[in-house]
Amino acid sequence: MPTESKVDVLVLGAGPAGLMCAQGLKRAGVNVRIIDKRPKKVAAGQADGVQPRTIEVLQSYGLAERLLREGNQMHMVAFYNPSPNGGIERTGRTADITAPSARYPFEVTLHQGAIEAIFLDSMRELGLEVDRPIIPTALELSHDENELRDPQSYPVKVTLKHLDFGSEGQDDTEIVYAKFVVGADVLTFSGAHSWVRKTLGIIMDGEQTDYIWGVVDLIPSTNFPDIRNRCAIHSSNGSCMIIPREGDKVRLYIQLSDKDVVVDKATGRVDKEKTKVGPEELLEVARKSFSPFTIEKAGEIDWWTIYLIGQRVAQKFSVHERVFIAGDACHTHSPKAGQGMNASMNDTHNLIWKMTYVLRGWADISLLRTYEFERRKYAQDLIAFDKKFSALFSGKPRTEECQDGVSHEAFLEAFQTFGAFSCGIGIHYSPSSIPSMPNITELKHQSLTSHQTVGMRILPHVFVRAADARPFEIQDLLPANTKWKLVVFVGDIGPGKIKQIERVAKLADDLGKSTGLLKRYEDGVFEILTICATVKECLNYTDLPEVLRPHWSRVLLDDVDMFGRTGGKGYDIYGVDPSQGAIIVVRPDGYVGTVTPLEGVKDLETYFDTFLIRTL
Amino acid sequence: MPTESKVDVLVLGAGPAGLMCAQGLKRAGVNVRIIDKRPKKVAAGQADGVQPRTIEVLQSYGLAERLLREGNQMHMVAFYNPSPNGGIERTGRTADITAPSARYPFEVTLHQGAIEAIFLDSMRELGLEVDRPIIPTALELSHDENELRDPQSYPVKVTLKHLDFGSEGQDDTEIVYAKFVVGADVLTFSGAHSWVRKTLGIIMDGEQTDYIWGVVDLIPSTNFPDIRNRCAIHSSNGSCMIIPREGDKVRLYIQLSDKDVVVDKATGRVDKEKTKVGPEELLEVARKSFSPFTIEKAGEIDWWTIYLIGQRVAQKFSVHERVFIAGDACHTHSPKAGQGMNASMNDTHNLIWKMTYVLRGWADISLLRTYEFERRKYAQDLIAFDKKFSALFSGKPRTEECQDGVSHEAFLEAFQTFGAFSCGIGIHYSPSSIPSMPNITELKHQSLTSHQTVGMRILPHVFVRAADARPFEIQDLLPANTKWKLVVFVGDIGPGKIKQIERVAKLADDLGKSTGLLKRYEDGVFEILTICATVKECLNYTDLPEVLRPHWSRVLLDDVDMFGRTGGKGYDIYGVDPSQGAIIVVRPDGYVGTVTPLEGVKDLETYFDTFLIRTL
Repeated sequence: MPTESKVDVLVLGAGPAGLMCAQGLKRAGVNVRIIDKRPKKVAAGQADGVQPRTIEVLQSYGLAERLLREGNQMHMVAFYNPSPNGGIERTGRTADITAPSARYPFEVTLHQGAIEAIFLDSMRELGLEVDRPIIPTALELSHDENELRDPQSYPVKVTLKHLDFGSEGQDDTEIVYAKFVVGADVLTFSGAHSWVRKTLGIIMDGEQTDYIWGVVDLIPSTNFPDIRNRCAIHSSNGSCMIIPREGDKVRLYIQLSDKDVVVDKATGRVDKEKTKVGPEELLEVARKSFSPFTIEKAGEIDWWTIYLIGQRVAQKFSVHERVFIAGDACHTHSPKAGQGMNASMNDTHNLIWKMTYVLRGWADISLLRTYEFERRKYAQDLIAFDKKFSALFSGKPRTEECQDGVSHEAFLEAFQTFGAFSCGIGIHYSPSSIPSMPNITELKHQSLTSHQTVGMRILPHVFVRAADARPFEIQDLLPANTKWKLVVFVGDIGPGKIKQIERVAKLADDLGKSTGLLKRYEDGVFEILTICATVKECLNYTDLPEVLRPHWSRVLLDDVDMFGRTGGKGYDIYGVDPSQGAIIVVRPDGYVGTVTPLEGVKDLETYFDTFLIRTL
Repeated sequence: MPTESKVDVLVLGAGPAGLMCAQGLKRAGVNVRIIDKRPKKVAAGQADGVQPRTIEVLQSYGLAERLLREGNQMHMVAFYNPSPNGGIERTGRTADITAPSARYPFEVTLHQGAIEAIFLDSMRELGLEVDRPIIPTALELSHDENELRDPQSYPVKVTLKHLDFGSEGQDDTEIVYAKFVVGADVLTFSGAHSWVRKTLGIIMDGEQTDYIWGVVDLIPSTNFPDIRNRCAIHSSNGSCMIIPREGDKVRLYIQLSDKDVVVDKATGRVDKEKTKVGPEELLEVARKSFSPFTIEKAGEIDWWTIYLIGQRVAQKFSVHERVFIAGDACHTHSPKAGQGMNASMNDTHNLIWKMTYVLRGWADISLLRTYEFERRKYAQDLIAFDKKFSALFSGKPRTEECQDGVSHEAFLEAFQTFGAFSCGIGIHYSPSSIPSMPNITELKHQSLTSHQTVGMRILPHVFVRAADARPFEIQDLLPANTKWKLVVFVGDIGPGKIKQIERVAKLADDLGKSTGLLKRYEDGVFEILTICATVKECLNYTDLPEVLRPHWSRVLLDDVDMFGRTGGKGYDIYGVDPSQGAIIVVRPDGYVGTVTPLEGVKDLETYFDTFLIRTL
């Protein structure tokens, strides 16, 4: 008889999407298990670009520090185009990312194994290891509506097979009953479909392109002056992208012609058996694009592959909000835009707090519908972006002979237009993502924070702590700890600002009511952070009503630090009028849920009543 | 028969001075052993303030990150003085430190045990543990001049006693023969003399004051608005200093009158048996100073003590440059200025590279004389500062009744005058600290770097890396890795700057000579860092001569980052003319050794020939 067990959440696949999911759930105290078919973690190659928003997300779990220590940073991008003298020449250098509000204004490159190690080590500290090598062999979802509606039921039955068992007569089969299952079971470049998606019969919309690219990781020996910058090389011999990586490593994306590569018509994938192109041939193609500069390998080639760009999005991201798919299991696109791993981690980042709230009995199970609503829309936008970018980058460059080729200006414009989106900062969840919520309410007071859009991530900015004048990045005070944050911009309450002080006192009364916002749900839903538009020499944190300073550390000032190096102008950054103030409601994943005036506690109660379960 | 063994360096005492010494030597590959009499590390209390320069030094060993993560930061200081209405009132708030060039513009407070743990964990990674509980019982230094002159001899014989041996009939005695011994065997507040200093018969100059203070560590419950700032309270009921610490803890320094405390006339120390003052009495005294604010303890008192301020400096810091004393073993002063642990760690930081060079056979043993020359001068300055500060702080405040008391203005002026010194940034080693060096040479070209003083630590500043536009704090590129750094400000070598480009080519030729500076000593003495006054859009790192770019990462630009957030104006900061350039020579401990023009390679050879041993 196979072993049987129960678990709240079973995560299938320990790539970036699965690991993000498992660590976040474990951190939130959820009973979670994660399995993977690979006996060991990835050693080299695979996805490797971490974008600004993803770094912010990792930081919100306390995981960015190591990424920044180990990874390479891409700050600058250089563009090369055909030179009138033959070969290529530099046509410009600009910032690698085009989102000025990014807290980390660069991309980090680090091989996937090292990124996975950050998650694995963090999970180990929390007492969670990946079970491997294991594959799922069957998945059954209950059809009983009552069971599906009850968040404490176990409606998913998954059969697992231990790949390292059996030789000693052990039974290699195991049955797991789960409340929820997350299928994150595709790895970038692996060429495999998601078993979970196929088992659930979810269709992928979209198509394969005929753009064929090779990828080589190597340590180069070169006289090319931009080898440590991201480079988009458009040459008459084909396009090439350079991605500098950790240490002295560099990744080259090299455009191939369909003459070089044999595509298997049945699967639409590169037939690696029949294709005669190997790493040396790829480097030979790259050399032609690099001319007049030279590039040779110093040492062995670390990793290489060849792929066709496919652009697809799954029709559904979940079945009955009980089995979810995430990451490459539900969207595929070209790796060059550096989206894959980022979209994957952000998929499950979106899911973690919602699943946690439902499992704790704090929120209605319908909250989980917003996962597909928010992330599928994002995936569709991503594919649309990817199509344009891939076409521009795979197209011929404009030269004297090729007047209808892609000009440097056209490429640069696309690069910058899509900048904010491609770095993840532009992610914008539509209103009404929270179920049964009348559209109007979330956006009703948007004008109070004219630069902080509802549905986008909370803008990073440095404020100074009132009690000790220490500067803090506000994102670090809004970590992914499953709590909702009420960021109360109380305005200027300095000496003489009687009216504003009275409004703040009234707000404190409203918040402190015995059946009010802070009392009517489970303890631990909310954290309060108060921001005063008053300078540090004047304000005492003890001036605030106690409900707005549950601890001395929770009062901030919109002021510069003692040496004027950081901070200041925070009300301008968020577009808040210091004579008005505003309450910005930040979701546990760092996105702004809604905005209200200081008199808007009733609106807040309405907002949270739509999805949180009341205890009073 | 006791066990006998040999070691290159034996460090006695595992407080901050000894731990800094041991970790630095071990990191440099030196054969080092460290012993301590305490069976365990310190758990609470003791010294706890880490100053800006000390944070820079810890960062140079890669140890600041954890300190910053675990410690509290003091950015602001508040001053309280007698109010005309009775009690105290705030007379001002200002920056806690007054050195605008500090990289970390604040002090960190963290209990000594946690600081020691940073060293202990780092040493463990390097394969070094503290041997404990062990005390030295005898120390003999050879009188043989040849032996003393030979850095590879073992002229010091130390007898050790294992305090945990003996009960099972083990021999608890051990003999160690060492090339060098470092006595770092006094702990702040411990009230014990240095055994090494006494054994060597080194006299302490200076005296005990009659200022008596109590210290209490507690978590307060208070309505005092500056409880999280450093506060200097001058009340008519006595003075008090607040030092906020990690978590919610606060340390209070409380002035006591000699009526409260019994001093043992023989030792000049507080007689703890006869003195009836305990933590509750200390808090009662503090309450009087705090009025009209209230302060109570929330929970138990963590740690407390009472002490008389003593201000003494040892007459010698070493005997024959074979046995050294460091830290509290050679200087004592009042804890309130927050100097103790900092001076201690910086003593051995000064010694580490010198000892390493002598042991490696890279430098003449006479180099070690500069330890006393540099650090004793500093200790004397520190005592002079401490006398003024203690007198001002222990003195009565000026009030209507007490017109000759200390005014807020006088105290503030002293506070700010001594600011740069007391935060460690002002440390200035005199020229000719390197032996046999004609004074003139080190300072000959000082005018080339008008804001970077020879003998002071290299100024922190952010530059942008030429190859990838990534911003770097220059101090992070000049770590305490035992190497001398040649920081070459090549000036503006942008398009058209033919003359400067030619000067740089000439410098590269001079540096590259077969018997020149880079070849005539042991491999590994030098690292080169090149800084161009050229913007990132124009310069290719490949434009530099190869000797000035041994790796792509070694070329920096004086420019802002891609979003203009950091960097820029570096030539101004150091006072270097971009049409001239300069070479700043940075010692392995981060202090500037000398400065030369780009044509000054001959001067550099003269400089290094005075103390480095030539191999060619």
